[in-house]
Amino acid sequence: MGAQEPPPESFASTDDARVVGPLQHVQSITFARDIPLESGGHLSEVTCAFETWGRLNDDATNAVLVCHAISGDSHAARHHPDDDLGWWDDLIGPGKAIDTDRFFVVCPNVLGGCRGSTGPSDLDPNTGRPFGAGFPRITVGDMVNVQRMLAEHLGIRRWRAIVGGSLGGHQAMNWIARYPDAADLCVVIASSARLTSQALGFDIIGRNAIQTDPHFNGGQYYDQPQRPDTGLAIARMLGHITYLSSEVMEEKFDPDRHDPRKVATIFEQRFSIGSYLAHQGQKFTTRFDANSYIALTMAMDLYDLGADRLQLMETFNDAECEFLLVSFSSDWLFPSSQSRDIVNALVALDKPVTYAEITSPRGHDSFLIPEDIQHYAPLIQARLGAIDTIAEQISEVEQIILQEIPPGASVLDLGCGDGHLLSALKRRGHAKLVGVEVDQNNLLQAGRRGLHIIDYDLNEGLPAFIDQQFDVVVLSATLQAVANIEMLFDEMVRVGRRVIVSFPNFAYRALRDAFVTGGRSPKAPGEFGYEWYNTPNRRFPSIADVHDLCREKSLRLRKEIYFDATHNRRIAPDEDPNLNADTAILVISHT
Amino acid sequence: MGAQEPPPESFASTDDARVVGPLQHVQSITFARDIPLESGGHLSEVTCAFETWGRLNDDATNAVLVCHAISGDSHAARHHPDDDLGWWDDLIGPGKAIDTDRFFVVCPNVLGGCRGSTGPSDLDPNTGRPFGAGFPRITVGDMVNVQRMLAEHLGIRRWRAIVGGSLGGHQAMNWIARYPDAADLCVVIASSARLTSQALGFDIIGRNAIQTDPHFNGGQYYDQPQRPDTGLAIARMLGHITYLSSEVMEEKFDPDRHDPRKVATIFEQRFSIGSYLAHQGQKFTTRFDANSYIALTMAMDLYDLGADRLQLMETFNDAECEFLLVSFSSDWLFPSSQSRDIVNALVALDKPVTYAEITSPRGHDSFLIPEDIQHYAPLIQARLGAIDTIAEQISEVEQIILQEIPPGASVLDLGCGDGHLLSALKRRGHAKLVGVEVDQNNLLQAGRRGLHIIDYDLNEGLPAFIDQQFDVVVLSATLQAVANIEMLFDEMVRVGRRVIVSFPNFAYRALRDAFVTGGRSPKAPGEFGYEWYNTPNRRFPSIADVHDLCREKSLRLRKEIYFDATHNRRIAPDEDPNLNADTAILVISHT
Repeated sequence: MGAQEPPPESFASTDDARVVGPLQHVQSITFARDIPLESGGHLSEVTCAFETWGRLNDDATNAVLVCHAISGDSHAARHHPDDDLGWWDDLIGPGKAIDTDRFFVVCPNVLGGCRGSTGPSDLDPNTGRPFGAGFPRITVGDMVNVQRMLAEHLGIRRWRAIVGGSLGGHQAMNWIARYPDAADLCVVIASSARLTSQALGFDIIGRNAIQTDPHFNGGQYYDQPQRPDTGLAIARMLGHITYLSSEVMEEKFDPDRHDPRKVATIFEQRFSIGSYLAHQGQKFTTRFDANSYIALTMAMDLYDLGADRLQLMETFNDAECEFLLVSFSSDWLFPSSQSRDIVNALVALDKPVTYAEITSPRGHDSFLIPEDIQHYAPLIQARLGAIDTIAEQISEVEQIILQEIPPGASVLDLGCGDGHLLSALKRRGHAKLVGVEVDQNNLLQAGRRGLHIIDYDLNEGLPAFIDQQFDVVVLSATLQAVANIEMLFDEMVRVGRRVIVSFPNFAYRALRDAFVTGGRSPKAPGEFGYEWYNTPNRRFPSIADVHDLCREKSLRLRKEIYFDATHNRRIAPDEDPNLNADTAILVISHT
Repeated sequence: MGAQEPPPESFASTDDARVVGPLQHVQSITFARDIPLESGGHLSEVTCAFETWGRLNDDATNAVLVCHAISGDSHAARHHPDDDLGWWDDLIGPGKAIDTDRFFVVCPNVLGGCRGSTGPSDLDPNTGRPFGAGFPRITVGDMVNVQRMLAEHLGIRRWRAIVGGSLGGHQAMNWIARYPDAADLCVVIASSARLTSQALGFDIIGRNAIQTDPHFNGGQYYDQPQRPDTGLAIARMLGHITYLSSEVMEEKFDPDRHDPRKVATIFEQRFSIGSYLAHQGQKFTTRFDANSYIALTMAMDLYDLGADRLQLMETFNDAECEFLLVSFSSDWLFPSSQSRDIVNALVALDKPVTYAEITSPRGHDSFLIPEDIQHYAPLIQARLGAIDTIAEQISEVEQIILQEIPPGASVLDLGCGDGHLLSALKRRGHAKLVGVEVDQNNLLQAGRRGLHIIDYDLNEGLPAFIDQQFDVVVLSATLQAVANIEMLFDEMVRVGRRVIVSFPNFAYRALRDAFVTGGRSPKAPGEFGYEWYNTPNRRFPSIADVHDLCREKSLRLRKEIYFDATHNRRIAPDEDPNLNADTAILVISHT
């Protein structure tokens, strides 16, 4: 912010954390050779501005590429405590999730931008005048191509990780789509395989506002007295609405709806939200170039890794990295469903992938906001090898389940909780382990254990998974909380060669007694201390019920293990387990 | 559309149904007197353009006022089969929901518009030149004031109904806020008590685009060679995105995303959605005036009936009409939560109100779309007196409940289904009857019976209702489907002086027998044919369970009626009803 007056508190936006003055610590490299572009055009030389943190190790295996979003730049983090804040300062630094004591972090400014790398405001070496409208159309692929030249220049053959949010996520995925062996890990935050038609529409309106600004002059405004600041400000205002959720806008701007801040502006100032938009729009014109905005939004709009799962599977077929995707519940510009589409394709390809939808009211901007970074940062940290060693609490039932899983089997654990079962399997050496969990705290804890967990609701079925993808599917102590049990059974035997289901038996003797003598609605045995009116359980199956369902669906019951945890003993199948066992473990498969 | 080429099908929008040529059948009246405005300004005369359908009856009790939305006009419906389609043609006409054979329908063009009523493009009688920027600031209240002058002119003292969607809904509510005895019925579709900050933001950006258009010339463009068409088109593009849901945009524009239609335009045409926006934006400039757009959006933005329930209760305190509110699930410009805020205030004031949230993927535009009109039209029709007489299927248990309801008591029926119980009470002469239902088909059927039904999920509690608002609250055959039973009990005794709860007893002898001998999860007795894995029930209470809960909450059990429907006999409280009754009816109250 420098000498500027800081904006009033309710005006703070993620944008205000960004450096608006000249950047320090920026290095740059000029590639003085012909660079062909995906559009068919070319650039006769390209400069790439970038910043780095930490030191590249001797075998160049600790380099992390950080890709910025549309209005970001190379200043992702501070270089020293007194440095200007970076836009991802909570994520990158000594001891942070992307630990600059361990990693050599590189953040380049994108091709087409206006913060050091070649863009439309630079001089065209062929004419000696700024490119302006003569700047060729660029794509995310072209941005990645320049970053790859930078990597070569730095002596990096393979990134430890490529990390990006929004347009940065597009770059990260494009790296892998083009160069499947380019990284060990690809981290994609609040991004998508392509824009929604709605997001496309907003970008188009923004570009229309710029291009019809009379000072735009067909893009040749650099030698004119005025720039298309009005159009650029309007485009930016529109962007700002899409970066926030309606909920958070209400919180920020409703209390003083009719009390606008004083902003020197040509724009309307009748409402608080109006002065915020005017402030953000005008501020943007002081640090961003309209032609760059057009070039970068168009690159985003043309970005398309695939409209459906098959196309996405083709895109990522050869990928050799792990993936981590994060979305935010209130992000309507890059909604969670778009991240799930990518996850579904990656899972179907058997790529190792973790996916978390972070519950946040802060919309698309969440990926830049400390309150939300703190939730997803530990997942990045774990995937970068800093794994929490948390002792696993394995119940007796789970011990039995573990015994039933053949050595080395691939396992999908549905409702995996904090991942303790998968963690035990991991220590046993199983390579392909995937958990599904919907509770955010559980999911994050499982992620911190270094497990691959997918954030899905079992009531939606298992759309991510393909037929017979796992040796074993486990549903442990989860059945009774699922509404759509019939579909889940169909899905489990579709996805797994064997299915291990453990569940509390609601026809256990003690429960029957309580029901018959006490006449009370049965409660789950064991650890569950709920009342009938507040239990998370919504099904109360007995062993006989599940047998019936298996018979109805012609499923094969390969093994039955019954357990009386109360008296700590096994119940044989001929000892009337439906009466005598409080817990059942069934191994099921398709006929 | 006239001589224009019809747009390709995927380009169809509700806007295309609107007449863009000169209107026929328009009458107009000029009030040549000083009209003071809410802003403090005034107009020295006002012309109001309007259309009418049907005939006013002798005592002027059959007049329906229809209020249009921002870009609408007086042509709400055809006047004869060969006439141009109106924007609400599916709702208004002979034999339709607003039946022009029965009602005298009046649709005026709003003050500030540009389709016949006085607006900024008209000549200022004081200067002989168009008002332009000199047009005084107007409010929704000013629009209503002119409509009231029209009503007087037509000899209408009280409207049978005032009906409007979006800005039309704002007018309808403002009528009642200003003149509480102005109508028998107020119908508000897809509207709100005030705009969200997000919606406000979009309007502001639209106005900024117009006002910074160099051809805007401070609003004095009528004698200039060019008008601020670019700005107006951009504002309209933005509007069009907010009128659609993201889902429906995907459906319309994704299949041919990269294949834009050919539109003669100065705007970008790279994507299908871009050519749609260009088409809609440009088309709008041929029929709408930029100053009117500014005046009407500003009136909408300034509209504010109250930010919270207390303010809204003050607004509607004296209202003497019935209310019908309709919202659409995918409308993010006027989200359902905003309709619920209004409903909560009206319900707390004991005003008769029906509220339905129609499930639709079509966003805000739903209120104009035939597929959605067909869902809400019957509710309007019923409130206008065309009530379906559907025979009530009253079960024996419900007969007992009816007996327990004192004559004339006010009754709230939670989970009222198709309203058969309330319908029976209505025939018995009860005046204050309200149903709550979440299933759309049930709700619409109850509405067609002429009942007042509120579309709410019982798991959210009863926030609409105030303490001790009803003599009797009924929860019949619904308890077992509610997750949050504890809160619901608290809420029921808060809202009702007496609560009648009927529920299937899951500890009934036959179920215990089945459980004990068969070892199967208990199923509900009687009419419910579900399996344990697919029942909508999620709680399985016994009579003893509910007794326990009442004891725990120190609720007074005023009456217990037990019933063995299987054997068609009453069970006395000392005959072990928890074993012998399959159904319980408990009358409960706060201590």
